[in-house]
Amino acid sequence: MKIETVLSPSLFSQIENLEDKVVVVIDILRATSTITTILANGASAVIPVREESIAKEYKAKGYLVGGERGGETIVGFDFGNSPFQYRPEIVKGQEIVLTTTNGTKCIEMSAHAYQVVIGSFLNLDKVVEHINYLNKDSVLFCAGWKDKVNLEDSLFAGAVACSFMDKELDDSTLLCIDAYNAAKGNLFKALQNSNHFQRLASKGVTKDIEYCCETNMIDSVGVLKEGKIILGS
Amino acid sequence: MKIETVLSPSLFSQIENLEDKVVVVIDILRATSTITTILANGASAVIPVREESIAKEYKAKGYLVGGERGGETIVGFDFGNSPFQYRPEIVKGQEIVLTTTNGTKCIEMSAHAYQVVIGSFLNLDKVVEHINYLNKDSVLFCAGWKDKVNLEDSLFAGAVACSFMDKELDDSTLLCIDAYNAAKGNLFKALQNSNHFQRLASKGVTKDIEYCCETNMIDSVGVLKEGKIILGS
Repeated sequence: MKIETVLSPSLFSQIENLEDKVVVVIDILRATSTITTILANGASAVIPVREESIAKEYKAKGYLVGGERGGETIVGFDFGNSPFQYRPEIVKGQEIVLTTTNGTKCIEMSAHAYQVVIGSFLNLDKVVEHINYLNKDSVLFCAGWKDKVNLEDSLFAGAVACSFMDKELDDSTLLCIDAYNAAKGNLFKALQNSNHFQRLASKGVTKDIEYCCETNMIDSVGVLKEGKIILGS
Repeated sequence: MKIETVLSPSLFSQIENLEDKVVVVIDILRATSTITTILANGASAVIPVREESIAKEYKAKGYLVGGERGGETIVGFDFGNSPFQYRPEIVKGQEIVLTTTNGTKCIEMSAHAYQVVIGSFLNLDKVVEHINYLNKDSVLFCAGWKDKVNLEDSLFAGAVACSFMDKELDDSTLLCIDAYNAAKGNLFKALQNSNHFQRLASKGVTKDIEYCCETNMIDSVGVLKEGKIILGS
């Protein structure tokens, strides 16, 4: 098994034979943490859409729709990108439509992979277990921020890859493992200097960040099946 | 002062206002380590050229010419990319022409920067001192391997950035700092799993790698001036 890490969507085209690989999409702050939470809170599926206009079409059809651009909730949508908004009593049994700046773009870019898996610290061990279960070459795909590398996604890639030290690892993966080993003692503190932390903290969502840094609170994993993210087996 | 790190040439276009920034080009194995060595061994300049054909024109004019493609010495050239080949008694007082797979490409890409500086572990402290002396926003530009991120260049970016913890750092820089902090106790060991190490070790150049991991053996720094790399003040 080979593990590769893509540190920015701008580097995703370097991945060869995508159709034979598992892609773990990583957008820790906050899309993939939020998707993991929505499913854990009982939604039957999350429908990721790249374009705001398509999300609006779903909204017109009566779907519950969430979305942000540049970290701000889209006007007229039911939710933003904060995991706390998707409460169990609202999302249970529903299909939730979600569009975000970086995360949903990466899900769409990965759609032709063998399988797309949604990664977050919230279900880290479950993500590792699922990769082991699938037993295929895997790509840890960091969504970053507007095509730039970001720290939190890279550290999560390192956190996953730590469980695959006996596999073939590319240099991006080794870099993330080293960084995670230095940061894991206090992830929240490590992220305090990051650009995205400062961007979000200025919007008053520090408690979202604290939540997204928590590890193994959720014992399920989302996977993409026919355009919808559902719980994987 | 702001410090940004470019982890792959594919991400270099994200840098804005290049003309106002210092760019440290980093190709630890081996171009920038070799250039630093050539200058320390008394060459009057290193002329970096991107195309093999141009290097051959220099050769025809009587210059000493070094170069590799894919890690192999170009046939008919005086040197490959091993720092040990450029002995003082051969290079002293000479202008040496050099073309390599990744490093010289990045030097050319950076040519419009405020200043281009050649980085290596061999003269780490001198690179830091020179950035401080210039006192401008700076870009740590990792050459990588064929546009892929590599470990040794990223760790060097972290090694430099450690001296600028009080400056504005982008997330790529924070990632490299974390990784360097985990690896610095034994850099050579940290690199043993890297893809480039294995590629070079298979060619029998382990002693080149050991040399390129040595820190602060050289007390000078190369800078690009009118197309030639000379010793900076």
